[in-house]
Amino acid sequence: MSELQYHVDGDLVPASAATVSVDDRGFRYGDGAFETLRAYGGTIFEWDAHAERLERTCEHLHLEHGCSRADLRARMDETLAANDLVDAYVRLSITRGVQPGKLTPQPEVDPTVVVYVKPLPRGGLEGESVWDGPATVETVETRRIPDAALPAAAKTHNYLNGILARTELSPDADEALLCDLEGRVAEGATSNLCFVVDGELHTPTLEGPVLPGITRRVVLELAADADISTHEGWYEPADVRTADEAFLTNTTWELRPVASIDGHAIGGGPVTSLLAERFDERVEAESYSNN
Amino acid sequence: MSELQYHVDGDLVPASAATVSVDDRGFRYGDGAFETLRAYGGTIFEWDAHAERLERTCEHLHLEHGCSRADLRARMDETLAANDLVDAYVRLSITRGVQPGKLTPQPEVDPTVVVYVKPLPRGGLEGESVWDGPATVETVETRRIPDAALPAAAKTHNYLNGILARTELSPDADEALLCDLEGRVAEGATSNLCFVVDGELHTPTLEGPVLPGITRRVVLELAADADISTHEGWYEPADVRTADEAFLTNTTWELRPVASIDGHAIGGGPVTSLLAERFDERVEAESYSNN
Repeated sequence: MSELQYHVDGDLVPASAATVSVDDRGFRYGDGAFETLRAYGGTIFEWDAHAERLERTCEHLHLEHGCSRADLRARMDETLAANDLVDAYVRLSITRGVQPGKLTPQPEVDPTVVVYVKPLPRGGLEGESVWDGPATVETVETRRIPDAALPAAAKTHNYLNGILARTELSPDADEALLCDLEGRVAEGATSNLCFVVDGELHTPTLEGPVLPGITRRVVLELAADADISTHEGWYEPADVRTADEAFLTNTTWELRPVASIDGHAIGGGPVTSLLAERFDERVEAESYSNN
Repeated sequence: MSELQYHVDGDLVPASAATVSVDDRGFRYGDGAFETLRAYGGTIFEWDAHAERLERTCEHLHLEHGCSRADLRARMDETLAANDLVDAYVRLSITRGVQPGKLTPQPEVDPTVVVYVKPLPRGGLEGESVWDGPATVETVETRRIPDAALPAAAKTHNYLNGILARTELSPDADEALLCDLEGRVAEGATSNLCFVVDGELHTPTLEGPVLPGITRRVVLELAADADISTHEGWYEPADVRTADEAFLTNTTWELRPVASIDGHAIGGGPVTSLLAERFDERVEAESYSNN
C-alpha cells in the first residue's frame, strides 16, 4: 500500500512528513480539540453530531478557529478521496496554533487543523468487528477529572487522565473503567459503558464527568426505538459487576461486549446483540443508501 | 538577531523549522513531561532539582525515555552555546514520541526531546525583573485537578486546567489563583503563592494539588536561613486577601510581588524584598562564581 496522506493546514502531505511546530500550543500544552470519526461507504457517520460536539469543545476552550463545518467536512472528504478510502478511521484535530510564549491564550488564532486517516473496514451486518473480542475491563484507582477542573464534555488533547488509567491495567486487559471522586462509575478511558439488568439498559449519567459519546447517544435512541427501557443514572462498580450484560461504546469499537470486569464474567446477551444489529442497520441506512 | 536554534531529537534546527510528527503522543495527547529552566551566566540554575522533578514526572507517566541527566544537560548546553546565550529561558520537553495508534502506552519508547531557548536577561542584584510590575491576581472558578485524577507533582504537556483558569481573568489581570475542590488555595496557573502575615511566611502545603516549585523550595530555604518562620498549610482565599505581603514564584518570574488579589491591594514589603535580595545573591553565588 502506498503511504497514507494526512491533511495539515490545508495541504495533503505524506503521513511521515506531517508535522506541527514544537511551538504549537497543541504540542506545548495539549491546547486543542479533536474528534474521532468513522467513514462508512465514503460518508462520515453522524457528522452533524461530531461537528456539534467539536463546537462545544471549542467553546469550553475559548478557541475561535474560524473554520466552518463545511470547510472541515471538505478537508476530511478530500483526505479520504486522496487515500482512496471509503471505510476509514478519521481523526480531526484543531489546536490554537502557534502564539507568543505565554500560557494565556491570545484571541487572534491561526489554528492548526490536522486530518488523520487510516483504513478501517466496517463491521456491520456482514463484516467483522474491529476489536479482537469482547473486552476485559478493570476498574482503576485513577479518578476521572471532575468537571470543575476540566469539563468532561470537552474532547481535548489533554488525555493523560485516561493514559494513567490505562497504565494501571493488567497486561491482558483492554479497557480501564474510571470512577468519579465519589467512587461512582463514570466511563472507560476511551469509551462509554452500558449495562443491562433485567432487560433494561443502564449507563452513567452525563451529570457526572462523562464524555457525551456519539455512539452512546445513538445506542440510547436505538434502545428507545426497540422499546427497551433506558436509565441514565449513578452507579457503583458493584452494579456493573453483577449486571446481566455489559458493553462499551465508542466510534471505533461501535458496541463492544464486556467479557469481564475485575474478573467477574459478564459477556453480551440478547439486548447487546439486538442493539448491535440495530446499530449496523443504522450505519447501512445512513451511509450506503446512495450506493 | 539571527534566528534562534532549537534542539530536536539531537539536532540543532532553526526554531521555524523545529517540528514534531502529528502522530507524536505529545501532540495527540499531551503525553509528555517538561521543565522550564533559567540559564544565568551560562549555567542552568538548580539543574539537579529540575532534573529530579523531571524524573519524578516521568515516573508518574511511566515514561522511560532512557536519557541520562548528563545527556539532557549536554543538549541544553549545546543549544545555549549555538545561540550565544548566557542568560536565557530554557524549556526541556520529553514526550513518549510516536507509537502505534492506541491510547495505551507501549513500553518501547523512542522519545521526542526538545530544547527551546530564548534570551532572558537576568534580574538580579543590578538587573531588572522580567515582569512588567507586581502581579494583579484573581481567584477563579476553575478548580485545580485533584491528585487522584492527575498528580500535581507531574509537570506535563496537559496544561488546559491552567489555560481555562487564565481565560477567566479580567483583561488587566496577570495570574489566576486556583483553589482545590474544597475551596482551599492551591496555586497560580504557572506559579506558586507565598504570603506574609505578622512577619511569617505562608504557602499552601504540597499535600494539596500544588506543583512542588523549585523557586518555592529555594524561597523556603532562604527564609529559614534568614530566621523567618515558614508555614506550609491549608488556606482560604480570605487569608491571602488580608495578608501583609504576597508574592508569586516561578522559574521565570523568580519572586514577583502581588499588587492585588480580587481587587484587595496587598503589595510586597520588607519580607518580600529581603527574600528577593537573598534570591538574587543565591543566583549570583551559584551561577557567576566561576566568571
